[in-house]
Amino acid sequence: MATAISDSFAIGIDIGGTNTVFGIVDIRGNIEARGAISTKKHERVEDFIEELYKAVMPVIETVGGKDKIKGIGIGAPNGNYYSGNIEYAPNLSWKGIIPLCDMITKKFDIPSALTNDANAAAIGEMQYGAAKGMKDFIMITLGTGVGSGIVANGQLILGHDGFAGELGHTIIIPNGRLHQGTGAHGSLEVYCSATGVRLTALEKLEQNATTPSLMRNYTKDELDSKAVYDCAMEGDQLALEVYAFTGEVLGRALANFVMFSSPEAIVLFGGLTKAGDLILNPTREHLEANVLPIFRNKVKLIFSELKESDAAILGASALVWDIK
Amino acid sequence: MATAISDSFAIGIDIGGTNTVFGIVDIRGNIEARGAISTKKHERVEDFIEELYKAVMPVIETVGGKDKIKGIGIGAPNGNYYSGNIEYAPNLSWKGIIPLCDMITKKFDIPSALTNDANAAAIGEMQYGAAKGMKDFIMITLGTGVGSGIVANGQLILGHDGFAGELGHTIIIPNGRLHQGTGAHGSLEVYCSATGVRLTALEKLEQNATTPSLMRNYTKDELDSKAVYDCAMEGDQLALEVYAFTGEVLGRALANFVMFSSPEAIVLFGGLTKAGDLILNPTREHLEANVLPIFRNKVKLIFSELKESDAAILGASALVWDIK
Repeated sequence: MATAISDSFAIGIDIGGTNTVFGIVDIRGNIEARGAISTKKHERVEDFIEELYKAVMPVIETVGGKDKIKGIGIGAPNGNYYSGNIEYAPNLSWKGIIPLCDMITKKFDIPSALTNDANAAAIGEMQYGAAKGMKDFIMITLGTGVGSGIVANGQLILGHDGFAGELGHTIIIPNGRLHQGTGAHGSLEVYCSATGVRLTALEKLEQNATTPSLMRNYTKDELDSKAVYDCAMEGDQLALEVYAFTGEVLGRALANFVMFSSPEAIVLFGGLTKAGDLILNPTREHLEANVLPIFRNKVKLIFSELKESDAAILGASALVWDIK
Repeated sequence: MATAISDSFAIGIDIGGTNTVFGIVDIRGNIEARGAISTKKHERVEDFIEELYKAVMPVIETVGGKDKIKGIGIGAPNGNYYSGNIEYAPNLSWKGIIPLCDMITKKFDIPSALTNDANAAAIGEMQYGAAKGMKDFIMITLGTGVGSGIVANGQLILGHDGFAGELGHTIIIPNGRLHQGTGAHGSLEVYCSATGVRLTALEKLEQNATTPSLMRNYTKDELDSKAVYDCAMEGDQLALEVYAFTGEVLGRALANFVMFSSPEAIVLFGGLTKAGDLILNPTREHLEANVLPIFRNKVKLIFSELKESDAAILGASALVWDIK
């Protein structure tokens, strides 16, 4: 007997470099049960899948068994939706091309789908969060790096090879700051990630050597984006300038993205959004200043409505409802 | 009796600021008959439609009458696919919002569809030209201005309001050259249009005041993009540098577009493409240098396969095959 969709559950699995978290999610986005295993300790992907199976199967029983599960959705770095493969993920120990969907489907005997973390976040937001009901929006994740998921005409833009949506690597300031990871100069990620905020703070301190700043109470190693935020909340002028600059670069970038796909909204997610208006105000100002008049004051610039701890599981699980 | 699609024709109408051209097109892209009227002389859109009707109807008879016509596709500046309106087109004398599709459909009693010129070019290319069979590509028109039409998942990206795809107005060089028309600084259009080539040439001549150049044989007013091209073909060093720079800016822009939608191809169209390898080589070089490795040497950078004189009619007509 077929199970109605309202009685079905999706498994959402988020594979990170260190840990893998999973949850059993209903169609409304309630996480009924959850669990986690280590990613890092498994040098062979086969061992990882074995442990994942042992961790997930008992949890499935708590919602009524395998018949209730519509599918498994997986978010992973460099996860390719078309192929179901993880391809050359720099921060996983499994090298080369890993046919993850095939392996998961075979092991669990449940259909599965895979995409990268930012795309998963976008469809999570569309299914359960701030972009509910929207057909055109862009999700920007501002964390250790800058990721993106783009939805147009109600579908993820994946590109001809599944690698679309690398907006963190678009060049916003030609010949700008060097991105150590990619070798590119002036990309969005090298300014608007947690690392970028830290680098901007170090630059500001050096360029304004005689200006007093609470940020000088930290050693170079201690001065992370959290420290910059704390100083800004104390009203520290240089720390505030760090956010003004970060928002300016982000706003300029978003203006270009708006003129590409004219989204109804841009949804911001991740650690940097904790800065609230400190980041939102300069971002909005420079977005509006850099778009053509026909786009002005039309795009909603909003924060994700998903709890950060749940978003990865919800995003991965949302893939399942589209599995044919 | 219903007419089979292979026996049907589409009417393609391209509305330009000066003239309007139209053609009767079959499903394979053969233009069976064509005509033209003045746009400019009609201050009222009602008069324009009246003359258009009188010009088109006799031509319809040459292919077997109205029953053979599946629909009318229209390309026009600021044409909005969703609403069927021309909205605030700066270079037409009809001001404000013109409900063109409604007016055409009522007058002709034939279904109609409307989009802007660059989007029409993109679907023309997909239906009849270099992008045949592609589901993900970007069309860039390099003419007096720079336009774009973006196809992803086999569909035009129109955005939530129908205005997506204004890539000519994305900012490539922050605080760069002023665009007189929009007030923006450093947009793609202010460098990579015919006007942009002329401005770059004038800058090069001024910055290299002691360098001999064939371009100095022209007055400032005479030195247009055609003159720069002629000088470059004669091997003139400064003129060649104009193309190298134009290609560099275009390549940088295309790199960002590739990281957005990961297209199978970028199709270049319009006057600037006459420069062939002079523009193509530096464009390709800077495209490849500015994308992440996963995108490198994957994107086809190609010229349109449609005759420039036919492309606007073909593009507009291609809209018809999607009318439901």
